Amino acid sequence: MELTLSQPDLARLLALVGRAVSTRNVLPILSHFLLVAHADRVQIAATDLELSLTGWLDADITQPGALAIPARTFTELVNALPKDTLRLSLNPLTQILSVRGAGSHTQLKGMDAQEFPPLPQGTTPVLKLPAAELKALLPQVTLAASTDEARPALTGVLVNGQESTLTFAAADGYRLTERKLTCPALRQELSLLIPARALHELGRLLNGSAETIELLISGPGQVLFRTPQFELATQLLDASFPDYAQVIPTQTRTTTLLPTAEFLKACKQAAIFARESAHTARLNIIPGRAGEPGEVKISAQDDETGSHETCVEAVVAGEPLQIAFNVRYLREVLEVIPTPQVVLETNHPNTPGVVRPHGETGYLCVLMPMHAG
Amino acid sequence: MELTLSQPDLARLLALVGRAVSTRNVLPILSHFLLVAHADRVQIAATDLELSLTGWLDADITQPGALAIPARTFTELVNALPKDTLRLSLNPLTQILSVRGAGSHTQLKGMDAQEFPPLPQGTTPVLKLPAAELKALLPQVTLAASTDEARPALTGVLVNGQESTLTFAAADGYRLTERKLTCPALRQELSLLIPARALHELGRLLNGSAETIELLISGPGQVLFRTPQFELATQLLDASFPDYAQVIPTQTRTTTLLPTAEFLKACKQAAIFARESAHTARLNIIPGRAGEPGEVKISAQDDETGSHETCVEAVVAGEPLQIAFNVRYLREVLEVIPTPQVVLETNHPNTPGVVRPHGETGYLCVLMPMHAG
Repeated sequence: MELTLSQPDLARLLALVGRAVSTRNVLPILSHFLLVAHADRVQIAATDLELSLTGWLDADITQPGALAIPARTFTELVNALPKDTLRLSLNPLTQILSVRGAGSHTQLKGMDAQEFPPLPQGTTPVLKLPAAELKALLPQVTLAASTDEARPALTGVLVNGQESTLTFAAADGYRLTERKLTCPALRQELSLLIPARALHELGRLLNGSAETIELLISGPGQVLFRTPQFELATQLLDASFPDYAQVIPTQTRTTTLLPTAEFLKACKQAAIFARESAHTARLNIIPGRAGEPGEVKISAQDDETGSHETCVEAVVAGEPLQIAFNVRYLREVLEVIPTPQVVLETNHPNTPGVVRPHGETGYLCVLMPMHAG
Repeated sequence: MELTLSQPDLARLLALVGRAVSTRNVLPILSHFLLVAHADRVQIAATDLELSLTGWLDADITQPGALAIPARTFTELVNALPKDTLRLSLNPLTQILSVRGAGSHTQLKGMDAQEFPPLPQGTTPVLKLPAAELKALLPQVTLAASTDEARPALTGVLVNGQESTLTFAAADGYRLTERKLTCPALRQELSLLIPARALHELGRLLNGSAETIELLISGPGQVLFRTPQFELATQLLDASFPDYAQVIPTQTRTTTLLPTAEFLKACKQAAIFARESAHTARLNIIPGRAGEPGEVKISAQDDETGSHETCVEAVVAGEPLQIAFNVRYLREVLEVIPTPQVVLETNHPNTPGVVRPHGETGYLCVLMPMHAG
């Protein structure tokens, strides 16, 4: 292997792919990057056996070859080198990679590329997705995924494909998100339970350079997302996702329209005083009288510190209501609502509320109410 | 107490003064700010009994008063409130502070201002120092102060005043820094051992708004730094600083002139490979021949990972030399060298080296050599 490439390009790619380097230190090879010089491009890959990331880079390649290289040291070295051209050459007998650039010479001990776990290969694309839309919807959905390994199904995002619509859903027992994506190219029914962590990483990789992203089945219980720049492969979760549809309220007694940014600010303020009461904030929803606007009073109480209340003007249709929510959950969903106004649909202090962007269909977040104490 | 003030001003001041809020939670009052509304300005103070910070703020005061207020909750609240005017009013019977702004109303439980520890009062100024020069020199000196509480004297910076010169010095047993500041106003001899932590905080406070800063003696074993915007008071260390002058080499066999930025980069690269060998990097100093420039080879070796060497062009006067230093220490001093070129003075592999900015007198850093292995 012998090649030259640009330090800034390499540094950027290592930062992206490095997220799949194993931090658990089970097998030494998993703390390595696979570095492959093909005829005209360099491939860099990392895997922790659950998640695999691969990226490509243009380079001037004199001699192809492959090596596994310690991820941490190689990343630190590349980041410390000047923005310059780097010259990499491998001694295949010793597996030592020589890195030269700007007056410096490094010799890095690698491992045989053959020891690197085989990377997932895609077969036929199942469908193509619009990259920008996918990037926007991922955080809206994943926020409700659980991180509790005791219930593995809830750490995933259900991706259901039927009749030209993909539906993404996540739930952790306290809240539920659902996002629909119109997908005319969808031809076969799909039901995949994808780890939320893999979708977090997918969101990071989608930086606007690709217009579409392909979804492929890459083996039993494994999917692969692919653009011309990168591949992300992940094991699917082997668990069954709860039948969540029954949790979504089918009627609404009180519909409240609020300015998203002001409502979010009020939640952040209330959160300071809600810490000691399991993050409970109360909403007092008051319809307006005789053409006057209504309002929502968001309040929280801390026996030690004090109390806080913010009034936000709102359009309230229906009955007045007092209801309490976990204010962190409320904050997290308001942070991913893209519209200037947000709709809160409620029925009763003891039944779930629904948060939706105003004027956009396809997204909702169901929040369990809390006991107001 | 009743007043209105600006949220951005208040937020900024709380961030500055908050650094002196006790994190140890010994006495509840030490996790509070003292808030005093004088006739035309608000004073906010925090202390952990060793370090006290006080700042002032313009405000529209209807009624003076004072209260101790929980620092963390108050800071979080102010940061979460919109950039607006805030109205503060105290109920002196309940010690509850009401904070109103932008549709929100908070009631914060405070403590009696009388319970707040008395703040250090300055007497006559001992001397006035140029604020910008002081800000620049503090990090140059404090980098060599120890954080090891077992040797308290070494956690301080010695400030010695004699014949129109203030000398700042710090040492941790492995390195030593000395910085002189011409100070014509100095009339009396001074010898203060100031905790390095207090000088770190002083550096943060010196933001360019004040031209000079006053140094006052505020009690036995206590000094106070004062500008119109803030006061910082600190206990002096009651320990004797070693007689450090004898450590500074008085002769030089090899003088090496290096470009500061390149030398620093080379040290950062070597540091990656020096971790497993107690951060040892070797310098191979090679004088140039017949009008050619000389060079310094900076190298480090890691038995597991590999080896690294960078060549930096240098002007070398004197004997060739191989010497090893702790590369972290070398990096830290190069980071505070303000001149484009740096001078390294050496004698022998087993005797200390001296780093100085090129073309500026008054600053030096002595580094103990390491065994090159």
